[in-house]
Amino acid sequence: MSSLLFQENTLRTFTECIFKAIGCPEKDAVLAADVLLSSDLRGIDSHGVARLSGYVRLWEKQRINTNPNITIVHETATTATVDGDSGLGLVVAPFAMNLAMEKAEKYGSGWVSVRNSNHFGIAGYHAMQAVKKDMVGFAMTNASPLVAPTYTTERLLGTNPMCYAFPAGNYPPVVVDMATAAAANGKLEIAQRAQKPVPAGWVQTSAGESTIDPHALKTGGSLLPLGSDRDHGSHKGFGLSATVDILTAVLSGANYGPWVPPFVAFLDPLPDLPGKGIGHFVGAMRVDGFRPVDEFKQNMDRWIERFKAAKPISEDCPVIIPGEPELEAEKLRKANGIPLTEAVVKDLRALGEKLGCGL
Amino acid sequence: MSSLLFQENTLRTFTECIFKAIGCPEKDAVLAADVLLSSDLRGIDSHGVARLSGYVRLWEKQRINTNPNITIVHETATTATVDGDSGLGLVVAPFAMNLAMEKAEKYGSGWVSVRNSNHFGIAGYHAMQAVKKDMVGFAMTNASPLVAPTYTTERLLGTNPMCYAFPAGNYPPVVVDMATAAAANGKLEIAQRAQKPVPAGWVQTSAGESTIDPHALKTGGSLLPLGSDRDHGSHKGFGLSATVDILTAVLSGANYGPWVPPFVAFLDPLPDLPGKGIGHFVGAMRVDGFRPVDEFKQNMDRWIERFKAAKPISEDCPVIIPGEPELEAEKLRKANGIPLTEAVVKDLRALGEKLGCGL
Repeated sequence: MSSLLFQENTLRTFTECIFKAIGCPEKDAVLAADVLLSSDLRGIDSHGVARLSGYVRLWEKQRINTNPNITIVHETATTATVDGDSGLGLVVAPFAMNLAMEKAEKYGSGWVSVRNSNHFGIAGYHAMQAVKKDMVGFAMTNASPLVAPTYTTERLLGTNPMCYAFPAGNYPPVVVDMATAAAANGKLEIAQRAQKPVPAGWVQTSAGESTIDPHALKTGGSLLPLGSDRDHGSHKGFGLSATVDILTAVLSGANYGPWVPPFVAFLDPLPDLPGKGIGHFVGAMRVDGFRPVDEFKQNMDRWIERFKAAKPISEDCPVIIPGEPELEAEKLRKANGIPLTEAVVKDLRALGEKLGCGL
Repeated sequence: MSSLLFQENTLRTFTECIFKAIGCPEKDAVLAADVLLSSDLRGIDSHGVARLSGYVRLWEKQRINTNPNITIVHETATTATVDGDSGLGLVVAPFAMNLAMEKAEKYGSGWVSVRNSNHFGIAGYHAMQAVKKDMVGFAMTNASPLVAPTYTTERLLGTNPMCYAFPAGNYPPVVVDMATAAAANGKLEIAQRAQKPVPAGWVQTSAGESTIDPHALKTGGSLLPLGSDRDHGSHKGFGLSATVDILTAVLSGANYGPWVPPFVAFLDPLPDLPGKGIGHFVGAMRVDGFRPVDEFKQNMDRWIERFKAAKPISEDCPVIIPGEPELEAEKLRKANGIPLTEAVVKDLRALGEKLGCGL
């Protein structure tokens, strides 16, 4: 599929225009656009402007409140629960992360669980805010149920990503930002468009059989946890995903498991919900709460150098330090522009026409 | 291989006797034995008394200090770094966890990074201490390098386990306690003894080729991260393992990567070490720092009930809630005794004879 190149600022202005058109205050529109653009710049095409019309459809269904009154509903010196008032996760999660960092500034660490929110973009954006302040950053979210626990055929968990971000010295930060499923849905969508099979171990049929059909989700199948099957540790992927679900939602009062409201607006939330909206969990710890920052950074650099020097299986495929490919993408895309597929461009232009924003 | 049954108390008394014989103060011997027995009771045979002579050999090599002066070397209200003075991890990690829980009691959360320690047994033991106080518990440790990062042939990481433990209401706690490798070394050892191949995806040869040979580690091979290969997300397993290495060691001043001192006493630590001993990271967060405990527990119960009701692929294999199999093992073994293989019994009896402890 061919793609078109857009300059970062063109897409940023367009995205801000769309968020303002649906009622976001100026500063929220700027922030939400920043989160989405960060994803496009970092090469995570599935979580950037390609999702913009998805957010708008949720707003049309009155499932997103673009002018939320975000509140702290429970608090100690270093912990808090935030109610996002059905706001965009793109705005609610930064509020929570700022609160976590304020607490870390004062007490060494800060941890905020969030309920009544919506999709927050990439976890890495939020965790990386802490790195700028020489803190370790954490961010997790639960998500629409697509993943079946080991031994089952039911979609009870989202791809529930977790991110850990660490500052370094002469090297870029180490950013581990990962879905806890074997493969995220975005990868299946790429295979669907390319009409290619997917590796066994990503997805199963509605009967729980292994399949390479990228369309299996549409016929009642489910994604598999990281590890793919029991022999290869899918119970660990399930455990990680469960951890995300509990920290983000059971702790905050958001919905969990099969009750997480779907991102797609054409699916309604289930009845008898146990909580409010979707849940996030973010945290920050000051590096100098553990050791002097310069010592930590020197050792991070030594860690990175030693891992970069790891003997490769093949010279064409060197080891990848977590966060490195995203940073490479960011450099390239800042210089050359962001490629969007024709389908995404068409969708965005139709959206812009409806809401009075040119692209 | 046949096995013999021992009552918990017989093994406990024997283990305490051994730890006292190598110079542990009474209370440390009792605590260290409790950590090891907890592993045997929970069915994690690789981390219990089967390792006792391994600890003794490290002491003989003067790599374990059985009468350590454990100190807090750096501290904020909610964070600290502890120096274990080369003590048994079985004693140092509980010190750190108690400190984390004291901080959580006062400020909502507490986080302790540990350097200059040794093997701490099962991560679950430490994380579960928090659950008894209605806190969420975290515990991680780095370990002897056996795992190769994705695309490489070098053993740069341990099986680096992480544990998250959550209290529930009418159900037992949810305890996610997992190595970040596709399979822990203990599973390879079982296959070696049974002279059976292992699933492809657990281990690779020294050239980085997939193999089913359970002995591959002995000829320069390496374990693979959770996910097994790049297509199935081994970069995520690598990222998780890296996270554990950084939180436990780069943050505390312990050794990391290939420099983590080996558990086996016949391998000496590498020269030019970047830190001291091995590293742990433990933490605790008060549930009521986020929402009332009873509300949290009611929702944990609903979470557990919904996941227990997940439609199984096969009626013989119901879904497994994390922590459930270990608790089942504990009930059985408390009632019927702990099975030890003949080889382990022989090894323990020889150890007992040398140190004046009967089994």
